[in-house]
Order: sequence, then C-alpha cells, then structure tokens
Amino acid sequence: MNQQLYTNQPSIAGKSFILRLEMDTDQVQFANVAKVIAEAGGDIIALDMIQTGSQMTVRDITVTVTKNDTIEQIEYHLKSLSGVRLLHISDRTFLLHLGGKVEISPKIPIQNRDDLSRVYTPDVARVCLAIQEQPEKAHTLTIKRNTVAVISDGSAVLGLGNIGASAAMPVMEGKALLFKQFAGIDAFPICLDTQDTQQIIETIKAMAPTFGGINLEDISSPRCFDIEKRLNEELDIPVFHDDQHGTAVVLLAGLMNAMKVVGKPLDKIRVVVCGIGAAGLSCTKMLMAAGVKNIIGYDKAGALTRDVQYDNPHWQWFAENTNPERKTGTIGEVLEGADVFIGLSRGGVLKREDVMKMASQPVVFAMANPDPEIHPAEIEDIAAVIATGRSDYPNQINNVLCFPGIFRGALDCRAETINEEMKLAAAKAIASVISDHERNPGYIIPSVFNQNVVQAIRTQVVDAAIRTGVARKIPSDFK
Amino acid sequence: MNQQLYTNQPSIAGKSFILRLEMDTDQVQFANVAKVIAEAGGDIIALDMIQTGSQMTVRDITVTVTKNDTIEQIEYHLKSLSGVRLLHISDRTFLLHLGGKVEISPKIPIQNRDDLSRVYTPDVARVCLAIQEQPEKAHTLTIKRNTVAVISDGSAVLGLGNIGASAAMPVMEGKALLFKQFAGIDAFPICLDTQDTQQIIETIKAMAPTFGGINLEDISSPRCFDIEKRLNEELDIPVFHDDQHGTAVVLLAGLMNAMKVVGKPLDKIRVVVCGIGAAGLSCTKMLMAAGVKNIIGYDKAGALTRDVQYDNPHWQWFAENTNPERKTGTIGEVLEGADVFIGLSRGGVLKREDVMKMASQPVVFAMANPDPEIHPAEIEDIAAVIATGRSDYPNQINNVLCFPGIFRGALDCRAETINEEMKLAAAKAIASVISDHERNPGYIIPSVFNQNVVQAIRTQVVDAAIRTGVARKIPSDFK
Repeated sequence: MNQQLYTNQPSIAGKSFILRLEMDTDQVQFANVAKVIAEAGGDIIALDMIQTGSQMTVRDITVTVTKNDTIEQIEYHLKSLSGVRLLHISDRTFLLHLGGKVEISPKIPIQNRDDLSRVYTPDVARVCLAIQEQPEKAHTLTIKRNTVAVISDGSAVLGLGNIGASAAMPVMEGKALLFKQFAGIDAFPICLDTQDTQQIIETIKAMAPTFGGINLEDISSPRCFDIEKRLNEELDIPVFHDDQHGTAVVLLAGLMNAMKVVGKPLDKIRVVVCGIGAAGLSCTKMLMAAGVKNIIGYDKAGALTRDVQYDNPHWQWFAENTNPERKTGTIGEVLEGADVFIGLSRGGVLKREDVMKMASQPVVFAMANPDPEIHPAEIEDIAAVIATGRSDYPNQINNVLCFPGIFRGALDCRAETINEEMKLAAAKAIASVISDHERNPGYIIPSVFNQNVVQAIRTQVVDAAIRTGVARKIPSDFK
Repeated sequence: MNQQLYTNQPSIAGKSFILRLEMDTDQVQFANVAKVIAEAGGDIIALDMIQTGSQMTVRDITVTVTKNDTIEQIEYHLKSLSGVRLLHISDRTFLLHLGGKVEISPKIPIQNRDDLSRVYTPDVARVCLAIQEQPEKAHTLTIKRNTVAVISDGSAVLGLGNIGASAAMPVMEGKALLFKQFAGIDAFPICLDTQDTQQIIETIKAMAPTFGGINLEDISSPRCFDIEKRLNEELDIPVFHDDQHGTAVVLLAGLMNAMKVVGKPLDKIRVVVCGIGAAGLSCTKMLMAAGVKNIIGYDKAGALTRDVQYDNPHWQWFAENTNPERKTGTIGEVLEGADVFIGLSRGGVLKREDVMKMASQPVVFAMANPDPEIHPAEIEDIAAVIATGRSDYPNQINNVLCFPGIFRGALDCRAETINEEMKLAAAKAIASVISDHERNPGYIIPSVFNQNVVQAIRTQVVDAAIRTGVARKIPSDFK
C-alpha cells in the first residue's frame, strides 16, 4: 500500500488563538511582530484592524499553533518587544463555544395577536385536544416528529472519563450540531446530574413524551447496557447507545469493504477482538449478526474461552458464545493465523511481530484513541488494510458516519426501536457508498463529509424497519 | 369610561381553514363558489392557484370563520355545487403546528474537518476540562447561559385540565416560541410522563445542569407549591412557576396603575380575592409584598377568617394572615365598601348588585377564563377600571407580559433564584411602561407586543437581583 499514507510525526490538531495587540507605530512595525510569531512556531492566518490612531493601532491577529507551548513562547517574546502591548489572548475553540453551540429557533414568527392566538392560547387548545383524543398525533403535531434527545450522565466522556454532567455538555452540544448539520434532525443535549442507573432510567422515561428518539452517549459500562435495555423495553421510541452501536455499525461497514479488498468472505474469517468492554461486546454481536463465525475475545484475562469461569459478565458471554476452537495464550499466540485484529483497548498493545504471525493479507482495525493499538507506520508494509479511530489517518472508524442517518431513517418511518436488522442495514449502506471501482486499501470507509452517506443509510434503515414490522408510518417515497 | 369598549357579542377568535377545490371551468365560475362561502358566513382572505388546465383549475381558498358550524355549512353547500370537487380542508392552526413549532439550530456551521475538530472531538475536550476545573464556566461555555426549560406534567393545562404530557406539548412549544420572540431566550419544552411530586422533583433536578433556569407550567395545585419550593431550595438556578407568579406580577402591575387612576394608595385599599387556589395565593402574597394591608380571601367556604379552622392549607394560611377585620358573609356582603375585586374563580360569580355595594370608583379584575366573573359590559357604567384575562377586552392581565423579561433579567445576571424583590421589581417595571400621560381606565397594562416591556423588566430585575445578593454576575451595563 501507499508508503506516503503514514508518518511518525505526532499529529496535533492545530489550535487557533486570537492575540489582541496594541502597537505604538513610532516604536515598532508589524513586521517585527510577525517575525516573533513565526520564529516561535506560530502561523498567522488572519489580521483584523480593531482601532487605529495617529501613533497607535490595535489589531486582532489569529495565530494557529501545533505545539502546546508555542503560544506561551509567543506571549513571552511579544512582551519583551518594546512598543507592543498584548491586551488579550483568546482561544478560538473557546470563542466558538461561548454561550453554547445550539439555539432554539421559532419555526413560526409571532407578529400579531392573530399569530399569538394560533400558536398559544386560545387556539392551541384545539391542537392539545386532538392529541389527547389520538395520542399518536403527537408525532405530527409536536416537535416529537423530528426531535431526538442526546443524553449523557457524564460518566465516560471521550477519553476523559467521569467528568460529570456540566463538563460533558460541550460534547452533547457538538453532537446536536452534527445531528442537524448532517441529517436535519433537531437534537437537544441533556446532561443528567445522576449516575444512578435506576434514576437515569426513570428520568429519561419521564421526559420521553417530548422526543421521537433517545441517543444515549458517553455512559460508562456496565450501566449503559442496563439503561439501554430497560429503556428500549419500556419506551415506544428508539433508544440507541451510540458508543456501542454507532461504533459497531461503522466497524462492520469498514470490515465488509476490507474483506472485499482482500477477497475473504465474512463467514470464513477468524477475528480477534482485543478489549472486551461495551464497544467490544456490541461490535462482536454486530459481526456475528453479519455472519462472522470465528471470533476470539481477548482482554486482561487473556483469550476468553469456555474452559474458564469469569466474574465479568461480558467476558462470560464471550466465553459461552465465541472462540469455537478454544484458543488460549497471549495476544501474539491467539493472532497466529487470524485474518482480522480489532482493537478497542489502548495504545501500543499490538506489536509488529504479532501482525507478522497473522494469516496472509492481515487486516488491522486499531481503534484505541488517541493512540492506536499499533501505529500504522509500523505495519504498513505487512498489513493489507489498516483502519484507526483517528481523522489524520486513512480509514477512520468514526461513529459520526452512523447516528445521523440511522436516526433519520428511524424518525421518518416512526420506528418503535432500532433493531439489529436496521443496524445491519446501516452498515451495509455505509459500505455501499464506496463503489467497487473506488474501493482500495486506503479507502474502505467514506468520509463523514460524504453527502451520500445519510441518504443511503436512511433508505436502507427505513426498508429494514418496514420489513421487520417496527415502522409505524410508511414514508411517501416507500409507498 | 368609554362606552364603546365592550359589547355583549360572543367574541370567538376567528379560525382559518384552507379549502382545496377542483373546479370544472365549463360548469362553474369562481363567483359561484365565493357566493356560497360568503352566504354560509365565511370570509375569503386568500386565494392561491395550485394547478390549471384547459377545463379545470385547482385553487387553495383560505377562509376565516367565526362560528363553529360555518365550515360544515360551507362544505355542505360546496358539495352540492356541480362542477366543484372539494379535495381537502386544512385547518390553518393545525397546519401551523405540523412537526412542532420550534427547532434546534446550530450557532456554528460545520463545513470541514477543522470545524468538526473544534466543536467535537478532539478539541472539545479542552472545553470540557475547563468546565470540570471551574464548574461555573458552564454558564459561559454551554447553552446554560441562555437556555430555560419549560416543563409541565400536563396536569392543569390552560382551561383543559389534566390532559397529560403529550397533549400539553403544543402549549409548552408555544411558550418556548414566546421566550425567543420576546426576549431572545432559548427555551426548550419538556413534558413529563409522571404526576408524582417526588418524581417530578427528581427528574428536574437530574436535568438541571443543562439549563440556566426552569419555568414550571400548568402543574396542578397543591403539587405545584411543593415542586417549586423544593426545587428552589435544592437548585442554584431560578425555578419559576409561571401560573402562580407570572399572573401575580402582571396583576400587581395592573393594580398599581388602576390605583393611580382612581387616586387610592395601595396601603389604604380593601381587596377581596375570590378563588383561593395557587394563583389566588400567589397574587395575595404579591399584593402584601407591595404594601396592600387589607385583603379578604373568598372561596366556597365563604370569607376566610381566623375564627374558623380550615382543612385546606391555603385557606388556613389566608385565615391566619388576612382579613384583619374578620369579615364574614356572602361575596356581596364582603364586597360592601371594598375598593378592589380580584376574581380568579369562574364565570358569573360576580353580580352587578355586588359591584354597586363597593366603595366609590370600584376596580374589578375579573380574570376567570374564558368567561370572566362578570361580563365587563354589565358594569362598565359603574366600575372605574375593569381588567380581564381576555385579549378581546381592554386591560388584559396576560402573563406573557412577565416571563420573558423576568427570565431575561435573571439569566443576564446569572441569578440563583427569582426572589420576591425581583418579582416586585418586574411588576413596577411593567406598570412604568405606561406613562402618567397615557394611563387611563382603558389602558392600565401594556400590550404584550409593546417592545419596551421586556427591556424595562430586565433592567429592574437585574437591579433587584444585585441589590438582594442573588446575582452571580454583573452585566456590563450595570458596571
């Protein structure tokens, strides 16, 4: 594969800062300032004049840096420059988050008394009564039709862990942005100030009438399983824990295309899943639903096998349902002759020599974030296909590919739930966006900005929902 | 006062329907159709050509009707007109509600990978960590800054009663619209599928990190008192039950101006409050806070007096805290010599002869909806000032005047609560919008469309919050 795809350079996403500088034009020229910034490693990307006088100018200078200490360096050197006063440094990411990232907008303006009487008292009463008489009308006459809750308890946020409700809000708001931007869905972010399973279930059940679906997010294992299972049983709207199923759907899409690249059928491959938490479990179930028969789970206890009893219920499930050949040993031993490695664990657990023991044309999904189980550069000469969770390598397994489209489909057919068939359909749809002609080892999964993804998923998901009897409405394009 | 202000005509808010008609142009002319509609009592307000052919046209005709059976009449007569086919009748109010009345909009577009990395992973992590380190930053870096929850359990919706969570949604959505339209506040409507006091409290507490304030709405008495009290004690954001306090604030504003009209000071008047529920209690407390000393409560048990023990805790509170002269008797007897009647009960309980017994220049606030305690036309010749809850008479006591401004003020100074001083300040601000020059018996309260109201309330509420020590931020215009 392409040797230029990977480098060993640490890739830090560029951070932008805005420096507000007052300059005495008798003492200093802008060129001096620009030189200081460039020498410290900053990249000037924009200049805005804020104020200007006979001897003084105030400028906003937007600077991108790629190393953490560059901005301190710039600050230090600017302060030693005579005629320059650094008034303020703003971090562009923080500026973007000021006041939050979503707002509530009226779909109808209220310009006069007549409007007011229609959207509020007294005329709204007729709409209320229509819903009271036929509760299913809530799906057409309220925001339930197109609104999803993005709910977290802040217990397992990104790689940050248990940071609590308030600190988790920026992630949920970001997710709400993505729902609207990619699929036109109104998503409202809610962070819960409780980590008690029962209380989370009760709270979400209580607020459910407002919503057409619930996207659970960043809830730690094993509570996430109970919460999702109970809510799915007790509510008549889809409840979807994205960290489990979103990842599983996108992984399967990638694996389907990877197997086409290497020419191996899904039901003949041997897969080792390393890291058996919530995502490991849901990915494995998804692979099995897609026809993969030989899967081995690997975690701190080694390869999970039915010859051992495990306290951890996920491990025990693995022992009972996977590893048909009862393999044991280290990760290297288990990988001997395996076709696929799927990592959902942590950086560095996979070695080049382990990959060398795999079957011909080994496929490696090293999805630990931010550091993959093995750096792609270490195995690019021996692996047939490599995927990671990172945006700065090819083949990113990113759940942003799944949730907008799967909820678009579920809402459009008023699905009661998002079942296995719908998830399988979503995976196939994502894989299908890449044509036979386009598919190659560096392109097994479409970009999150590929505009065909959401529509492809929606169509397949609606079809699966109708086929499995969970659709309560047939969209007009399916009639 | 102006004799033209009131009529005895039943005033039904006009309802609009859209009729889609196919007409065979050989057989019928539009004039025939227009005649049928007009004769049945319909008013054609708009015409839209949908489709036209050599012999056929399809038109959408928007028709306003003021009586409930007019549309059936129109339908009946159109069907008997040859050459006309009625394809569809849509109710404009229902059309306006399709899919709900608010949406979630991104404040930041995501156009590329760089945007994505700032609003979502990986860069959002820095914002999360900043909030984790300093939790108060949630007020600046998340939607908490400008977002209020509008929450109901559907137990006491408008005049409809206990219609439940789903059917209450259109009202809460309407309220969310008003919050944005009048005060720029992002309000999200949530209806709770529980009417258990403890569970409502737990649910709202759990979701509180998302919001900068909670507007409780249409929750039945006495649960509304417990819920509001407990939440105010346990949360550090304002919790405001609008049905109680919104009405009380606007009533007090109206009463202040009414007393200026009749030239009586608040501390010298005698007020009879008829209907001692949640609103009656909060209105009375508000009046007492404003300096009214002589209040008599009246309900099914007659005038509430300390000589009697009541099971109803509100009545008992009234007995202990009001009626200094220990008045008893019928509503007519209690009103003898009273300056103000405040009705929060039901249509028709007040008679002209009762008003005739009041002190000179009697002031009547007949706020029962949709039928006031007495029809204004019955007493317009003897009452000095009349106010109602209806939009089709002068002096509407409408809580839409209060909640946008009071929350605008509370959010802008990051108030921990909305206390009595802030409510009093809001009432004074509303009253002050009408100048001495403008004030007259038919104009004691500004219109909900008066653009000075929200700004006036905001200024006074922020000032009161700072003065009473509940503001956690001083807005820049107060520094």
